[in-house]
Amino acid sequence: MKVLVVGANGQIGKHLVSFIQENESLEARAMIRKEEQASYFESLGAETAVVDLEEDVDAIAKAAEGVDAIVFTAGSGPHTGKDKTIMIDLDGAVKTIEAAKTAGVKRFIMISSFDTRRQAIQEAPASFAPYVAAKHYADEWLRAADLDYTIIHPGLLTNNKGTGQIKAAADIKIGEIPREDVAKVIVATLENEETVGKEFQIVHGDKPVEEAIHSI
Amino acid sequence: MKVLVVGANGQIGKHLVSFIQENESLEARAMIRKEEQASYFESLGAETAVVDLEEDVDAIAKAAEGVDAIVFTAGSGPHTGKDKTIMIDLDGAVKTIEAAKTAGVKRFIMISSFDTRRQAIQEAPASFAPYVAAKHYADEWLRAADLDYTIIHPGLLTNNKGTGQIKAAADIKIGEIPREDVAKVIVATLENEETVGKEFQIVHGDKPVEEAIHSI
Repeated sequence: MKVLVVGANGQIGKHLVSFIQENESLEARAMIRKEEQASYFESLGAETAVVDLEEDVDAIAKAAEGVDAIVFTAGSGPHTGKDKTIMIDLDGAVKTIEAAKTAGVKRFIMISSFDTRRQAIQEAPASFAPYVAAKHYADEWLRAADLDYTIIHPGLLTNNKGTGQIKAAADIKIGEIPREDVAKVIVATLENEETVGKEFQIVHGDKPVEEAIHSI
Repeated sequence: MKVLVVGANGQIGKHLVSFIQENESLEARAMIRKEEQASYFESLGAETAVVDLEEDVDAIAKAAEGVDAIVFTAGSGPHTGKDKTIMIDLDGAVKTIEAAKTAGVKRFIMISSFDTRRQAIQEAPASFAPYVAAKHYADEWLRAADLDYTIIHPGLLTNNKGTGQIKAAADIKIGEIPREDVAKVIVATLENEETVGKEFQIVHGDKPVEEAIHSI
């Protein structure tokens, strides 16, 4: 299975491409913004495609040609300018969803925020609410698209070493999760067709990733 | 017909409430953010409802109780902070659409931007693109809602005195239009049921407003 990783040069993306390349049944195409980001991925034996998410749907669709799945893990993060929040976290995600349709790629995994429900927008601190809103609308767009989607809602991201042990369910108490473990969850999701049409929150926990994902 | 004007204290909104109050078959309820904005509308004999668009759907739905139509003409404008662009122009609009459903108000008129199509987002200058994107997604949400909508796409807004003469069609060359004339177009749209399910651009022109709207 060939997987286009959108946002490959992000911290989750780098772990993800590495895990995909280590996995015998998967191979990665890293979508990156700049040519100079390519060497890391080439050293892992991954393909690269240089596309900026502010380009149009056709440019993204071209990067998606011939892949079997798309993972959207790009993100301006909650602390960039709010112009990037709407242009990357919302519009970049929607363009990638439209590109999946154009390229005929059915499988789509979205890395969302922990809670993107309407109530979470209302309750978020003012500085964080625009990010939650952007992720809310991107998730809504994906649910309405005719794709085999999974939406993963990770807790508070850390750079701690992954433990491979998580808790996953539709509605859990927020907690931390290492970015490395988020990447492991994405791989397990790619390998588990039962996750199609589902979404779940993940935090650190006491179940091995595959087992936790299996029980969703 | 009672009309909830969302964004009543804006420049288009103030003209609009005034025109509605002058019209025998219409009456306005001005939705405003602060109590101290009420006196202008009370002097026109209009009702007021104090609700901030950053409040939740229920608060907006309460303001919409018992009205026959909602006009959304709130806007952070293209030059406010981008956090307000997503929270007001997109999320505020979507919450108002959801509030219309909650309150059982079928008629909804959206004051959009001149061109909110995908291509317009791509072609907009970087500083303007987030605003176009926000309006794009708000329009998309309205089209997908089961409401009797009309989307009005005005050209470059000016504070010139209105002439009552416009050009209106699905796809025209951009030009200026006085805010006062936009308000006249909204009144004509409220009074013309043939505009339901339609959207059109407007600029200054050589046809009286009612006639121009009639030919859509």
